[in-house]
Amino acid sequence: MGAPTAGARLLTVALWSGRFAAAPAQELWDLTVDLATDGQLWREDLAVNRAHAHMLAACGILAPAVAAALECALDQVEEELAGGRFVFVDSDEDVHMAVERRLTELAGDAGRAVHAGRSRNDQVATDFRLWCRGAAARLTAGLDRLSGALLDQVDRAGAALAPGYTHLQPAQPVTLGLVLLAHVAAFDRDAGRLAAAAERADECPLGAGALATSTLPLDPAATARELGFARPFGNSIDAVAARDFALELLAAAAIAAVHLSRLGEEVVLWATDEFGFVALDDAWSTGSSMMPQKKNPDVAELARATAGRVQGALVALLTVNKGLPLSYNRDLQEDKAITLTAVRRLELALAGMAGLIAGCSFRLDRLEQRAAAAGAAATDLAERLVAEGVPFRLAHERIGALVGRLAAAHRGLAEVTAEELAAVHPCLAGCSGSWLSARACVDRRRLPGGPHPEAVAAAAAEARARIARRTTKETR
Amino acid sequence: MGAPTAGARLLTVALWSGRFAAAPAQELWDLTVDLATDGQLWREDLAVNRAHAHMLAACGILAPAVAAALECALDQVEEELAGGRFVFVDSDEDVHMAVERRLTELAGDAGRAVHAGRSRNDQVATDFRLWCRGAAARLTAGLDRLSGALLDQVDRAGAALAPGYTHLQPAQPVTLGLVLLAHVAAFDRDAGRLAAAAERADECPLGAGALATSTLPLDPAATARELGFARPFGNSIDAVAARDFALELLAAAAIAAVHLSRLGEEVVLWATDEFGFVALDDAWSTGSSMMPQKKNPDVAELARATAGRVQGALVALLTVNKGLPLSYNRDLQEDKAITLTAVRRLELALAGMAGLIAGCSFRLDRLEQRAAAAGAAATDLAERLVAEGVPFRLAHERIGALVGRLAAAHRGLAEVTAEELAAVHPCLAGCSGSWLSARACVDRRRLPGGPHPEAVAAAAAEARARIARRTTKETR
Amino acid sequence: MGAPTAGARLLTVALWSGRFAAAPAQELWDLTVDLATDGQLWREDLAVNRAHAHMLAACGILAPAVAAALECALDQVEEELAGGRFVFVDSDEDVHMAVERRLTELAGDAGRAVHAGRSRNDQVATDFRLWCRGAAARLTAGLDRLSGALLDQVDRAGAALAPGYTHLQPAQPVTLGLVLLAHVAAFDRDAGRLAAAAERADECPLGAGALATSTLPLDPAATARELGFARPFGNSIDAVAARDFALELLAAAAIAAVHLSRLGEEVVLWATDEFGFVALDDAWSTGSSMMPQKKNPDVAELARATAGRVQGALVALLTVNKGLPLSYNRDLQEDKAITLTAVRRLELALAGMAGLIAGCSFRLDRLEQRAAAAGAAATDLAERLVAEGVPFRLAHERIGALVGRLAAAHRGLAEVTAEELAAVHPCLAGCSGSWLSARACVDRRRLPGGPHPEAVAAAAAEARARIARRTTKETR
Amino acid sequence: MGAPTAGARLLTVALWSGRFAAAPAQELWDLTVDLATDGQLWREDLAVNRAHAHMLAACGILAPAVAAALECALDQVEEELAGGRFVFVDSDEDVHMAVERRLTELAGDAGRAVHAGRSRNDQVATDFRLWCRGAAARLTAGLDRLSGALLDQVDRAGAALAPGYTHLQPAQPVTLGLVLLAHVAAFDRDAGRLAAAAERADECPLGAGALATSTLPLDPAATARELGFARPFGNSIDAVAARDFALELLAAAAIAAVHLSRLGEEVVLWATDEFGFVALDDAWSTGSSMMPQKKNPDVAELARATAGRVQGALVALLTVNKGLPLSYNRDLQEDKAITLTAVRRLELALAGMAGLIAGCSFRLDRLEQRAAAAGAAATDLAERLVAEGVPFRLAHERIGALVGRLAAAHRGLAEVTAEELAAVHPCLAGCSGSWLSARACVDRRRLPGGPHPEAVAAAAAEARARIARRTTKETR
Repeated sequence: MGAPTAGARLLTVALWSGRFAAAPAQELWDLTVDLATDGQLWREDLAVNRAHAHMLAACGILAPAVAAALECALDQVEEELAGGRFVFVDSDEDVHMAVERRLTELAGDAGRAVHAGRSRNDQVATDFRLWCRGAAARLTAGLDRLSGALLDQVDRAGAALAPGYTHLQPAQPVTLGLVLLAHVAAFDRDAGRLAAAAERADECPLGAGALATSTLPLDPAATARELGFARPFGNSIDAVAARDFALELLAAAAIAAVHLSRLGEEVVLWATDEFGFVALDDAWSTGSSMMPQKKNPDVAELARATAGRVQGALVALLTVNKGLPLSYNRDLQEDKAITLTAVRRLELALAGMAGLIAGCSFRLDRLEQRAAAAGAAATDLAERLVAEGVPFRLAHERIGALVGRLAAAHRGLAEVTAEELAAVHPCLAGCSGSWLSARACVDRRRLPGGPHPEAVAAAAAEARARIARRTTKETR
Repeated sequence: MGAPTAGARLLTVALWSGRFAAAPAQELWDLTVDLATDGQLWREDLAVNRAHAHMLAACGILAPAVAAALECALDQVEEELAGGRFVFVDSDEDVHMAVERRLTELAGDAGRAVHAGRSRNDQVATDFRLWCRGAAARLTAGLDRLSGALLDQVDRAGAALAPGYTHLQPAQPVTLGLVLLAHVAAFDRDAGRLAAAAERADECPLGAGALATSTLPLDPAATARELGFARPFGNSIDAVAARDFALELLAAAAIAAVHLSRLGEEVVLWATDEFGFVALDDAWSTGSSMMPQKKNPDVAELARATAGRVQGALVALLTVNKGLPLSYNRDLQEDKAITLTAVRRLELALAGMAGLIAGCSFRLDRLEQRAAAAGAAATDLAERLVAEGVPFRLAHERIGALVGRLAAAHRGLAEVTAEELAAVHPCLAGCSGSWLSARACVDRRRLPGGPHPEAVAAAAAEARARIARRTTKETR
Repeated sequence: MGAPTAGARLLTVALWSGRFAAAPAQELWDLTVDLATDGQLWREDLAVNRAHAHMLAACGILAPAVAAALECALDQVEEELAGGRFVFVDSDEDVHMAVERRLTELAGDAGRAVHAGRSRNDQVATDFRLWCRGAAARLTAGLDRLSGALLDQVDRAGAALAPGYTHLQPAQPVTLGLVLLAHVAAFDRDAGRLAAAAERADECPLGAGALATSTLPLDPAATARELGFARPFGNSIDAVAARDFALELLAAAAIAAVHLSRLGEEVVLWATDEFGFVALDDAWSTGSSMMPQKKNPDVAELARATAGRVQGALVALLTVNKGLPLSYNRDLQEDKAITLTAVRRLELALAGMAGLIAGCSFRLDRLEQRAAAAGAAATDLAERLVAEGVPFRLAHERIGALVGRLAAAHRGLAEVTAEELAAVHPCLAGCSGSWLSARACVDRRRLPGGPHPEAVAAAAAEARARIARRTTKETR
Repeated sequence: MGAPTAGARLLTVALWSGRFAAAPAQELWDLTVDLATDGQLWREDLAVNRAHAHMLAACGILAPAVAAALECALDQVEEELAGGRFVFVDSDEDVHMAVERRLTELAGDAGRAVHAGRSRNDQVATDFRLWCRGAAARLTAGLDRLSGALLDQVDRAGAALAPGYTHLQPAQPVTLGLVLLAHVAAFDRDAGRLAAAAERADECPLGAGALATSTLPLDPAATARELGFARPFGNSIDAVAARDFALELLAAAAIAAVHLSRLGEEVVLWATDEFGFVALDDAWSTGSSMMPQKKNPDVAELARATAGRVQGALVALLTVNKGLPLSYNRDLQEDKAITLTAVRRLELALAGMAGLIAGCSFRLDRLEQRAAAAGAAATDLAERLVAEGVPFRLAHERIGALVGRLAAAHRGLAEVTAEELAAVHPCLAGCSGSWLSARACVDRRRLPGGPHPEAVAAAAAEARARIARRTTKETR
């Protein structure tokens, strides 16, 4: 769609006022019209038109014949839009006006009748709430697919030893499953936040009109019901003025994107030669013909960057809303361009990471080797003393001193002898050798939620069950 | 507390390693130590110490006598902290180390025993989750008090006529109650978001240790229960690495602060001479001895600015978390300074606005006069035609033309005659005069959630009931 | 452009490596390819290709005949792109690859030769720096046009009385010129910031290669010169890794957008019935056929909202860059989508506001009436006493007491008698009546930069001169 | 300072109006008073008081004796504040009122006279601009010290081989100097931005009064001069309403903090066992007595997190300013708490990183080993062909094919024979063995700004010279 001619703009202005002396300026048009964005809401707009028409007919505001003609025209418009054959004209200010124009072309007075008891303010708010509900569902599905890919890896090698890091320094040996499930746990809460956002948005603005409802005997509960909302609006000013439903969606998305960036960062690290924990699949990385060993983790990098995109969108919409008096202000039009772009980027990044994770191969030997370097054994010795009644700080001090003496002699804890251990405390006599191995350290940690393979398997099963419950609910 | 001497810093470093050759540099200390912030979590730290000690005793890790000595020392430390008599020393790196030091001074080995099976990583995460839970409750109470003040004004004058604005232009007459309840509706959802944040954070990290749990036979479910958490951690890496509980709290707070800024903006506007809708109470505004008529709405201005503070905090913590590999990184220490300041500002702003609203007097005559200027009557005439079966766009056009003719003759719609109306359509014959008044326009809008006094009263009652349910739940 | 087939994607991957076993996944393609964005940089890409080819020829790396063939092909590609006839194919990963592909189609080996001594890393960075330089110039021109519109209004009615506000309460009478020039002053600094951003970005990355320059005898100074950069890169890693040139542009744009939002807010207020300071032009506002008096200031509202959009972009790019190791990471690709959208919105908003301001009519009678309500006179009386040697606080107190006595008798300061004034201090005897008028208050304030009409005229002349200097520089 | 009693608050209100019936509410006080923040501006406030007093005396508004008494009292107040002996009282609303109160206690009417021709609006703006100027200088010094530490490391080992990364994959061998200088280059631009911010803020608001200047014969140029500003305000409304000077400072600081986060990330990576590029000094890291090999890079982590803090502050102040009408609004009070905290964090992080860098030891053997893995040699072979006239893409393809063949035989490029090379092209006959080494690759890259040791030395010398010029300018 190119810019409209002054004539077309004058045509539009006819909708506002016969009294306006001048067509809107081109710059006003450029600033205010964004069909590329709101055109993406055509499905929602048609659904809202249908529900509104049904309600008007049921309330006796539209005659049955008019309602039937409208239904027919809506079918036609839907076909045109779905088939990419709908023609926008220069004077179409937004998708809502385009649809009404086309309905009128197709059905005459029936098209002219559909906007009864409605204003663009409540119509737009309803369309956008519907879109946000769908977006929350799509993002949840994306998170669940990514979690599914992680869980598949857990199934494959969840019990393998892996280093656990703090400060990016190996701190304690854990299992690969525990590491991967940490990300699944975060994504699960993200799905919960998206569901909460969708639920709180579950209120239908239709019937609020411009801001003060209508004098017609409308039935907002009926339109709410048909569109799958839990309830109609509770305050007609709030219904057209509030955008916290989009803010909450973006906030949930921004937090999910931060979690995704943490996984992205880990994959970038794991895929380095230096860490060497993972081999990426060819289909999910980019390379260089000159350096065949190089596989760039572009998907993980762009997933990491998505945190910036979504956070930027959240900030944009928070700032747009800041300090706005009630009810509707034109500032709010920006909500859609901001939200749609951010949601789209996050969807793509989630899909990309799901594919990347599904296709990667963990290098279990390298993980095990690094797990051995992450020495929990000193802590275990101290806890062994604690079990004998030695106060923790003293136990910690004594083992620290032992470790220090060994280090001064350039020996690691793995090389300590049974005698040296017994000299610290008789109860440690049997704690040399394999007692100090990474596997033994992991095996001694049997708490639920911990690194033990059984705990990992149980947690993975629970995570799968949670996803299954969500999926069932979605598809119901 | 001044900066510690190098000696004191060396003392601290003793906790890290006897092998460190040098005391930490002063700049490292300045950057890493922030007792002014984490000192605010002393209540939570004591609660965590108590619960942990009880669990250790119940699990047989602490002897009964040790546990009793610890309890006693904890009582004493609590008294000292509550009474402002607790003395921090130079080497206290944070409130957790300060408490353990003092426990050890008071109870010797019992103090040295309390950290068994625990790491600063899970301890800090637990303290901070507790604090966030309390913060959510305090913010909810603040929102409810503000809503209560608005509802009191609705009780006083909810049925009074008021102008409803779009684009800050009077659009339709409504009632003052509808306007005030629009803000209450938004704050109610904010309370819902805070509750959701608190609920999702309802997982106790204690037992996760540094990141890999412990070899001791701990009972994380017991500490979770004593501290009022719904459940213990589900993944020990996630337990020390995740900060989405604080992010979600800040996101909910940021959205609430945006809502507060919209109310603040309205109060600033209403308090202008030009709008003249409200008179502020002396105790809640600032003035000028030279311009006695001037009352500055400082509280509303600072409430408006709070949106910036809280949004800034949300951005800060999102950015801090972005791209961090798991599990704990020192970056996360910044979470507390960021969150505490923002929550405190929002609490103060909510309290300020509750007082301001409670103390202000609406100028009902002025509101009514402006309501009359917000002419819904033309819309009502068009809807009257729609009720007769005229398609909406045609009805809209005909009334628009009538309004245009009147305007060309410098007459308002209020001056239209019965004859002129009848000429448009016979059904409009009776719609002149008082039919066109703002009060009649409001009276014709009887939908729930709309401006009609009865709808307003019903909505106010529901809002009060929701607040009452929350308050009951809180105090249970 | 639709999504490419797997075959096309395999074709692309040929550029990376013959060893890759699999075509890139569709999701990887969707996430990584954004031709709609980088296609907007085609002008810059062609300029860079030309400069690079010229330099290669001058350095003897390209034979004269090859260089000539390349020039010819570049002309053709430019014609195709400018004319909208350039055909992108499915395997075009970005505009740079598309251009090189087309050059090769047109000129064979000459096209294959153009990428010598160059990498996509330095090429993209150069393209984008050029684009940012142009963006800074366009935004500056937009600011200057808006300032020009404000200055035209100053020329028309700069000396008219207007209320000066603090806390949105009338505080002191000023002149309309002073008010409008306050915005001009802010936009002038914004232009300075944009110039500074462009200047600091004035370094050409070409020659930095992937990150480590090249072994060919390139002349980076020559390409820098031809592309109008002040100098070539100073560090080849920094050249491909740094994006602070875009961050500084966005920061300058975000601050300008905040200034624009403040002007937008004022216009929205001025255009209310309640303030009534300005009448908007039909071509620059939207209306309602049902409420002919209503003119919605959509342009000012969207200008206000632009602050959100640009700030969101700044946050997005800051967060994308946060914590990235050097040198190039794929995260950086997001820079363009973020920056281009934000700059475009700000350009449109500046153009819209320039038109809106140019077309609006200030209601001077209403401004003067409100100026009278903004009583500086009490301050002037106090300063009159100060001029007699009374310490300021005492003077302030005495006049405050006088004002208080009058107010208690429901009299304004304008009604004070000469006798009452003389009773406070003999020097005030002549200060009743017209001495207290708003015009007199303004006339007594003769400092440069103040409200006096002469000061306003002088400041306006200086502002025009600054703009003229910038414009001359631009067009040179 | 605790909260003031209602009596003290009533005392304060006396400054506003004798007509106020009620003391300000405690909540209003809590929300509006922040002495902990603005108390940090006492040095600036005293400087402003001195300059203002001198100007008043020079203009004949203060008698010489009064001026002398004031000077004396200012000396005394300065001593008290510098010595920590100044006593704030409950009714001190801010540091400005506290200072004036104390001056009045010490010097009676001279204290009461100092506020002539001044308002808190212009006074606060001047104080804060002075503070921001000082902050820019301190941050610049911090950046320069950090750059100095990096340059010292360049002096030590700038010519050592190091891997150059793209996508965190080794891409080409470079020198350690080139890597470190990339950070220095970014910090140098940051210093430039801070200088630009300070320069643009170089306008003195004193004399603007509340917003409309004064009727007294003030000399704003004189106060500007004494306070070291380049010029007095150009528009009195802008002078009290604008905060872009702080926004620009924060924007420059936020970009610098992003750069610091990138260095922080690199140090964290370099300090891992897996990369192993650097050993941190004991004094600049934290450790664990149980894992003696573990040295946590806390300083680098907190430096990385500082990007979040400063960006959050920038967002906060942008959002606070968004949509504010002119001139002063109380919202603007938030500027100081926001800015001071962020600047302080960045100062500490810069100091911390300077120390960390100064104290760390690069492991040159490990760097050299990884440099060898970053194979530029294939590119060099292709460029060798280009030098013979082979079009780049063909050259690239042929070498790519060679590399592919070798890889298929599990051989690296380093193992290629002279015969194999000659088979590709005769000119490559001599390019086996040491020609392919990392050192040779670096030695062939002689462009200024590149990795060659001579280029590095030259760039380091230039960087030192720029810092020296800044330092000289500062101390002048």
